[in-house]
This record gives sequence, structure tokens and C-alpha cells, in this order.
Amino acid sequence: MKVEVVAVGTELLLGQIVDTNSAWLGEQLALSGLDCTQQQTVGDNLGRITDALHLALERADAVLVCGGLGPTQDDITREAIASVMGTSLVTDDDVADRILEMFASRGRRMPPNNLRQALVPKGATAIADPQPGTAPGLVCPVGDKVIYAVPGVPFELQRIFEQAILPDLRARAGEPSVIRSRTLRTWGESESGLAERLAERIQELDDGPEGATLAFLASGIEGLKVRVTVKAGDAAAAVELLDAHEAGLRDLLGDLVFGVDGTSMEKAVADLLMERGLTLAVAESLTGGLVAFRLVSVAGASHWFRGGVVAYASDVKFDLLGVAEGPVVSESAAEAMASGVRKRLGADVGLSVTGVAGPDLQDGEKPGTVFMAVARTDGTEVVKVMLPGDRERVRQFACISLLDFLRRSLRGT
Amino acid sequence: MKVEVVAVGTELLLGQIVDTNSAWLGEQLALSGLDCTQQQTVGDNLGRITDALHLALERADAVLVCGGLGPTQDDITREAIASVMGTSLVTDDDVADRILEMFASRGRRMPPNNLRQALVPKGATAIADPQPGTAPGLVCPVGDKVIYAVPGVPFELQRIFEQAILPDLRARAGEPSVIRSRTLRTWGESESGLAERLAERIQELDDGPEGATLAFLASGIEGLKVRVTVKAGDAAAAVELLDAHEAGLRDLLGDLVFGVDGTSMEKAVADLLMERGLTLAVAESLTGGLVAFRLVSVAGASHWFRGGVVAYASDVKFDLLGVAEGPVVSESAAEAMASGVRKRLGADVGLSVTGVAGPDLQDGEKPGTVFMAVARTDGTEVVKVMLPGDRERVRQFACISLLDFLRRSLRGT
Repeated sequence: MKVEVVAVGTELLLGQIVDTNSAWLGEQLALSGLDCTQQQTVGDNLGRITDALHLALERADAVLVCGGLGPTQDDITREAIASVMGTSLVTDDDVADRILEMFASRGRRMPPNNLRQALVPKGATAIADPQPGTAPGLVCPVGDKVIYAVPGVPFELQRIFEQAILPDLRARAGEPSVIRSRTLRTWGESESGLAERLAERIQELDDGPEGATLAFLASGIEGLKVRVTVKAGDAAAAVELLDAHEAGLRDLLGDLVFGVDGTSMEKAVADLLMERGLTLAVAESLTGGLVAFRLVSVAGASHWFRGGVVAYASDVKFDLLGVAEGPVVSESAAEAMASGVRKRLGADVGLSVTGVAGPDLQDGEKPGTVFMAVARTDGTEVVKVMLPGDRERVRQFACISLLDFLRRSLRGT
Repeated sequence: MKVEVVAVGTELLLGQIVDTNSAWLGEQLALSGLDCTQQQTVGDNLGRITDALHLALERADAVLVCGGLGPTQDDITREAIASVMGTSLVTDDDVADRILEMFASRGRRMPPNNLRQALVPKGATAIADPQPGTAPGLVCPVGDKVIYAVPGVPFELQRIFEQAILPDLRARAGEPSVIRSRTLRTWGESESGLAERLAERIQELDDGPEGATLAFLASGIEGLKVRVTVKAGDAAAAVELLDAHEAGLRDLLGDLVFGVDGTSMEKAVADLLMERGLTLAVAESLTGGLVAFRLVSVAGASHWFRGGVVAYASDVKFDLLGVAEGPVVSESAAEAMASGVRKRLGADVGLSVTGVAGPDLQDGEKPGTVFMAVARTDGTEVVKVMLPGDRERVRQFACISLLDFLRRSLRGT
């Protein structure tokens, strides 16, 4: 089954916003085994949106159009879909009620424009959104094909896609009964390495009667994803199957798995710290604050994150963290940084990273050389890794490698 | 004149890479007054790339195709263009020589595949790239229209676009003689505010005989851009005109201008620190390390950046930075953080930011409330700002606002 993504918004064409939605949708479609061979981007122009939808319907079985569903006059995706369906827009009373209620409950006057969001093409269905007052998604049948419309706000788009559109797509793809997926997120092994570890398992699935499938996806510093998809008679049976598959995959992958579905590496670390009631402090050199920044992006970080020291100059490492004078790209410097920041910031766990981002050698070490340490009450662990890529990539990989090192250390207890 | 962008690469459709090139090109085209009303993304498939190029040529006067120019078998943009031109591929001896030389000079064996990069459609011109051994860009006339092909690597794409394609596009747009642009980057005023300040100037330009134009572009935390474009008999005359316009605009915009062309806010700050021979240390709370991370991303940061303290927990502010116990979202806390980090890290200048990212109140202050301070040998400046948006936007805006505050403080000396 082929699905085409159409992104709507003049701000995308002007480069005021980078279109991350199309990449996210492409990834979700790929992981679900749905083909996506083309994407289009068009501005807020009725004729051009209509043309793009016609073209996409010619090439694909289903079209996902993102954006242009807001309350203002330049949000005209609804009008374009109605034109493609050869119909007109009518007010969906349920949606209108939800919008009115939302404004009433906040005691705010509703700008009349907002009722535009309750308009749906005749014959289309509004997707009830658990968050009232926002633009609903739309399912719009066109002959035996379909157009789905979703808001351009990434959070809303992702929720509507996962909860309503993906199940509908699977059903249309002729998939029997209930289809569910689960994604295991891994770090520490290459895509080919993972495929090798799972080769037998994949063969078993292919030969088995169950119709379960495995897919891999490399997602940069978000790690490598392994998604298992199952079919079952009902949702409870699907969850049971997924639990069994997850357990089987975890047996084969062990500690490589850091999380499931939306769990980022920093969230995995946060959960472990919360569970063990530990606080954390970080000393960074080459990553320059990136590790701390990713940690504070986890909701509730103030419960376990004390803070960090960005010890960029060598003598900040000596003076503030108690590192002994000498080479700062070294095992002993990493150890001293971790225990220094732990004490200085009064944390249970101290984490450190020092290394060479490049392009030049430092302390005789090559670019990509990185030392990482975890300090705890009962001692310090340290490790050396060699990371690939340019300055920016070395920094990004150092960050996730460090968080993974901490995760493994915390799990070991 | 209409230009359409076609991005090639299965990795884009699978969401393994977010397509930042299309946004960058869209911005450049908009700033140059060229219309871009559609973009397409296709995978590495000959038939679909060819279809996309035909469609783009129907709709636009010029087509920019990005990616698929590398040495491997799935890099087939050249073949697709040759097919659209109704011609075949021939080896460009100059390009082949450059590739062979590059490998010879490094004493490396050349995989024969690399000579694929020397193939050009008959009738097309290779764009000589100053960096030898990489895929050259291509200018491919199709009737009175044109296809430009550029590599997908952002750095190479940007250089080839600026140096070769944009001038060619301008010439085709019927622009006389030499066209040059300069972009002033600003912070501290809204787009409508800038337009108001420059209204008279824009009117003068419109009425004037010179044909110079002004364009605005909002670029998020990269600031608001004002681009002036001039026409002249030769390059030297164009530069002279641009210098005069820049001086005139700077008179009107004053301190709002933080840089020109590729100069980011952190680079502007770095240049001022280098010029004045000052070192910097940063104390961050709500930004959690983001300010330090942006600063170390400037090449040569080790010359002036000492490091930072991410004082997320209140008592890290008290213990490590000498902030007096009490509310930490306050003018006095910001002051103490800036002078504390300055002393602790032995820097000439201390910079601090504390505030409420949200969603909850802190110390009775609303989300978006941010205090910033700059501490120097002769005293401390502090300022309070209210920033819009959600948690993530407040953090991003706090970061650029803080750097801008430092810039203004340094310029004042």
C-alpha cells in the first residue's frame, strides 16, 4: 500500500520552519511496512494544494496532508479537500460544541474565526481529539482511496497519527483484525550487528504462522530502533503477543535496549535515577553543556538533576573539579572530573566526559578519543571510546554514549 | 521567475535524515526575490526522479535538484537529468582529472566508482568546485529552462548555490550585470517593528533609479534578517553600493544589528571577546547548558571560553556561586550568579541567566520571566525580560536574548 505525504505551509517554502513532520511520518510509515515514495510541499494556495492532492491520489492509495487546518483565513486545507472530493464544507456540531465549551470553560471570548475549525467536507469524518479546542484531524474518503488531514503542530500530528490514522491505514491495507507495534530502542551495536543477532529470530518470524514482522531503523543519536508488529484477534491478545516478543528480543539484545517507544536515552536515565532515589551532577569538557541540556529537557528533571560544570579550560578542571595538573584527555582526568563534580555539587552520582572533538590532536590523542566516568559513593568506573565523524558528530555521539554508560552503570546495581 | 526544489534520497523519505536543504534553499530564493511555490521529495528511483523533474519543469522556469550525485550505484540524479534532456552521459575530462589528482595527492587508491562523479549529461556544464574530488554541481539547459544539480551535503550545496547557481539564476531572471546581496542580522525588534523603522528607506529604494531592494525574513532564534540586494556594472561597484547601504541601514537600526551574512549571535559575541582580549564564564539555570553549548560551537572558543556552571538546583546556586538564600528567580540572584561564576572560573566576564521555563510558577514568577546579568571588573548589569512560548521556546529565546545582552554590554565599552 502506498501513502504520500503532502506538507502545506508557505512558511515551509520560505525556510522559516524546517519540516520535521514529513521525516517523522516517513519513519512511522516505513516502520509499519507502508511505502512512501514521494512527498510534496506546497504553500497556502488553494489551487496548488488541490493540484498536489490530485497528483498524490493518482500515485498513492492514501494521502496524508499536514498543516493548514488552523482558524485563520490562510488555513485552507479543508477547502482544498472539499474541492477534490467534489463537495462542500459543513459544520460538524460535535466539534463546534467542543470548541465553544473550551472557550467557555476558560472564561475567554471566542474569536468567531475559531468555528472554521469545525468545518468538515461533506462525507468526511472528524477525528475526535482528546485535547479539546484544537483543530481535529479529518478522514476523507475519495472513491476507494482516502485523504487524511492532520494539524501541522508536531505534538498534535503525532498523537492523531498514532491513535487514529495508523490503525485506519492498517485496516485499509487489508490487515486482519488488530495490528499493534512496539519499538525497542537500542544503543551500542551497529544496524548490521543487530541484524546478525536477530537473524534467526527474523527467520522464525518469517516462517511462523503468526504474521509478526521485525523492522530496523537507524535514527542518529536517538539510537537504532527495532520495531516488532503483530496481528491478533483483539487488542488484549495483541498486547500479550507484543509482551512475549519484547521479552524474546530483550533476551537476545540484553542491555542494548534502553527504552521502548517514546523513551529517549535521557528519559531512560531519569527513570533509573528516580527509581533509585539518586541525584546527578555532570562535568563536561568537549560536549560543552549538551549533556546537561539534554538532561534538563526531561520533565521533572529538578527532582534528580543538581546541575553541571562545563570545564572547557584546563585550569577550570584543575581548580574547580580538583583534577591533577597534566593531560586532561585521559582516564585519570575523567575520573577526577566525575568525583569532583559529585562532591562539589553535592550529588549522589557524578558523571564526566573529556575528549578531543577535533580537528586537531589534544594531549597527543586523536579526534574522536573520548574518556567517560561515573563516580558513586562506592567508587568510580571509567571507559575510553573512539567515536567517528566530524566535530559536531563526535560531540553528539559523546553525549549519548555518556548517558548510555551511566544507564548501564545504574542498571548494574 | 519561478524555481522549484527537488530533494532526492530514499533516506529522506524514511525519515533517517531531516531535509534541512530545502528550507535553506527556500530561504535563499525568497531573500533573492525568486518564487518557490512547490517542493518535491523523491527516493533513489530513476523513473520517479525523471517524473519529478518533468513535473517541476512544467511548473517552474528553473529546477534545483539536491542529492544523488555521489559515486555509488544508487546516485542516479545524473542519469535522470540526461533522460529528461534526451541525451546521454559523457565524461568531463577536467572533472575526471581533478578526481584522479585528488586521490594521487593523498597517495590513496581510487575506487573506480569515483569516476562516475565525472559524468555529465551532454550539453550540460560542470560547476568547478574549489574543493577537488567532490561531486561537482551541474548546470543543465532544457530548452529555455534549466536544471541545476547540487550535492546533498549541506556545506557543498550552500557553497555551490551561492557561488555559481544564484548568479546564474539572477542572470536568467533578466537581471542586468552584477547582482550582489548582503544580509544584516538583527535581534531585539519584531518584523513589523523593523519594517516601520525602514519604511522610508524602502520607499526611497522603490522610487530610486538604482533598483536596489530590501527583504525581511524571520529565522527563529537565528534572529530577523534584512537583506539588501543591488545591481551594478561590476563586482567592485556592487560592493561599494552594498557598503553604502549597510552603513545607511546601520544608522537606522543601530545596535539591533549583530552581524552580517553568516555571522551567528555566538560568533558576534566571540569576535567582541577576542577583540577586547576578554575571557568568559557562564552560569545557567533554566537554559540548562544550552548557552555554553552554543558558545563552544564557535571555532576557536578555547581562546576565550573558560567554562560554565549549570546551577539547576537552588542550593548549587547558593553553595557554588555564592547566591544568597532566597528566591532564585530574581534580579539579585542573577547578579550573584554572574559575579560568582566570574570569580569561580577566573574569567574577565561572568554571564548569568535564571528564570521560569514553565509550565508552573516559580518564586511567584510567571513562565517566561527571565533575569539576565553580566558581571565585569567594574560592576554588574542586570535586566528582566518576559519571553513568549512554551518551555522549549522560552529556553531558546532566553539563550539568544542573553547572548545579545552580553553583546550590547561589550559594545558599550
